[in-house]
Amino acid sequence: MSADIIPLKRRDEEPAPTLEPMLQLTASGMNSVNSVILDRMQSEIPLIPALAGHLISGGGKRLRPMLTLAGAELVGYQGTRHHKLAAAVEFIHTATLLHDDVVDGSEMRRGKAAANIIYGNPATVLVGDFLFSRAFELMTEDGSLKVLKILSNASAVIAEGEVAQLSAQRKIETSEDRYLEIIGAKTAALFAAASRIAAVVAECDDRQERALDDYGRNLGVAFQLVDDAIDYDSDAAQMGKDQGDDFREGKMTLPVILAYARGSEEERSFWKAAIMGHRSSDQDLAHAIALIGRHNAVEDTRARARHFAQRAIDAISIFPDGKARQAMAEAAMFAVARGY
Amino acid sequence: MSADIIPLKRRDEEPAPTLEPMLQLTASGMNSVNSVILDRMQSEIPLIPALAGHLISGGGKRLRPMLTLAGAELVGYQGTRHHKLAAAVEFIHTATLLHDDVVDGSEMRRGKAAANIIYGNPATVLVGDFLFSRAFELMTEDGSLKVLKILSNASAVIAEGEVAQLSAQRKIETSEDRYLEIIGAKTAALFAAASRIAAVVAECDDRQERALDDYGRNLGVAFQLVDDAIDYDSDAAQMGKDQGDDFREGKMTLPVILAYARGSEEERSFWKAAIMGHRSSDQDLAHAIALIGRHNAVEDTRARARHFAQRAIDAISIFPDGKARQAMAEAAMFAVARGY
Repeated sequence: MSADIIPLKRRDEEPAPTLEPMLQLTASGMNSVNSVILDRMQSEIPLIPALAGHLISGGGKRLRPMLTLAGAELVGYQGTRHHKLAAAVEFIHTATLLHDDVVDGSEMRRGKAAANIIYGNPATVLVGDFLFSRAFELMTEDGSLKVLKILSNASAVIAEGEVAQLSAQRKIETSEDRYLEIIGAKTAALFAAASRIAAVVAECDDRQERALDDYGRNLGVAFQLVDDAIDYDSDAAQMGKDQGDDFREGKMTLPVILAYARGSEEERSFWKAAIMGHRSSDQDLAHAIALIGRHNAVEDTRARARHFAQRAIDAISIFPDGKARQAMAEAAMFAVARGY
Repeated sequence: MSADIIPLKRRDEEPAPTLEPMLQLTASGMNSVNSVILDRMQSEIPLIPALAGHLISGGGKRLRPMLTLAGAELVGYQGTRHHKLAAAVEFIHTATLLHDDVVDGSEMRRGKAAANIIYGNPATVLVGDFLFSRAFELMTEDGSLKVLKILSNASAVIAEGEVAQLSAQRKIETSEDRYLEIIGAKTAALFAAASRIAAVVAECDDRQERALDDYGRNLGVAFQLVDDAIDYDSDAAQMGKDQGDDFREGKMTLPVILAYARGSEEERSFWKAAIMGHRSSDQDLAHAIALIGRHNAVEDTRARARHFAQRAIDAISIFPDGKARQAMAEAAMFAVARGY
């Protein structure tokens, strides 16, 4: 059934795509964004910057604000309004990560103890709320109602996506389409909004605005697909996330959906029990990874990701070729190649 | 030390202040607000309206949106913009209640099982985030950047107040001034913002805007003081909240602060142990209530509340006398008299 899908493993003679061009493109702007982030996470209540700083200075890639900056380069925006807005995007993202850690009962995040483990759930929930409010303060200071609409809507969609994911948890019958809807909401909506607002501050036309939205949305889907693949990839380098978290939490991600769909009756029985939480030992995880390998489900999840990355790259083909477009295209390829 | 403070118990010949005039003043507007609330808590994810509705239709007084409506009446505003904004205020409040229930591990809210008990902490956190995002969508639709600034700032201050309260928990040395700062942030900031935005949509001058802010802020402080008094009031009618929650959670509220300050060495030892969580049985709670009674700490907390309620009433004296002002004044007196 999946025999005709060509494995995506990069050949050694091709240089691996990296985030390097994107990092260079946005380096100076990211300095400004980082200043805003550090400035606006402050509070007279010492626990707030301590907890927020644990995650914010904890080595995240800051990919979402980088999308705003790259988008601004792509459309030739000359101003600085997008620095505050990119910081707002990162605050929204950080708030959702803090709440996710509480929701999932995470123990690790980005290779360190998760904030909820160090500071407890109560403070983690509240500091998330604080950062979320700060994000809206930053947007209000900028004053664009269009940006406010895009990001407040994205925030509501993210929350809906997270609730939908929670509702799908431990439900073996979750379909691939349903899964794509969920990651479209919980992850891709913010990628789309982060890119789109660059076009808004630059007063681009609707077509350009839409193109940046499409780039971000497809990139976000690709990114989440690969994240979910890595959690079951026996070859993957550790990404600062405990491998097997999704398995133990009974999350229905694409590698599981594919392995279940392609599995024998016996394998399906195993998956049902595992997703219900009745098979969660290290040995069960090893068995799950073996089944996923047997059905090429990690490779095929990456193939799906490559499809969305390609759509992201094509979406920005309406803009003139140049450093920005090339960096954004390579970032999309990097999203797919991560973890090799 | 407290002998010269006159007890506040109302004399039977005086009619008790009620919320009735406020309810009548805002009845028709509240119908519109309730429609917006019901409409905007909907989502394709069924768990969202189910969980939100559990709290929203759970018999809250909707005091905060009522303040926006009463303020609009006070300043003679003729439009309807404030209906959406009042709904946004209620959504922010509901989001903080949902998160509070998770933070406190509450079992009861408004006389029913708390949302986190029925739906679990994860969904409760996420639906709070959803309502919070919806609040900002509503404000963005209205389009007033001034309102957005007031309410995004209030939201950040609320979160700071909640974190500050968490930091003060189980700390016997919390002072009355610190406590007033905390409730000023966690409760009164939203009361102030809810009142103030009525003046903003009506395009009042700064002095009137400030007067409505002061009314709301002082009313909020009075309201929270009485809430905290009721938790230790041996005479109080049950308010849909388990009496003794603050005690068991080691929250430093004014009745405890006063009883501790006025207590003997032996009493202070008891309070230290109790606030640390080493004395939390029903018998310990009965002893705490007895000590608080001995030092008039509930009555004196109500006396403090009366001071703030009076400031609220005086703050709106710059507006012409009439039905709206009288209803708002009686609401402030009602806030103090609650629970008798």
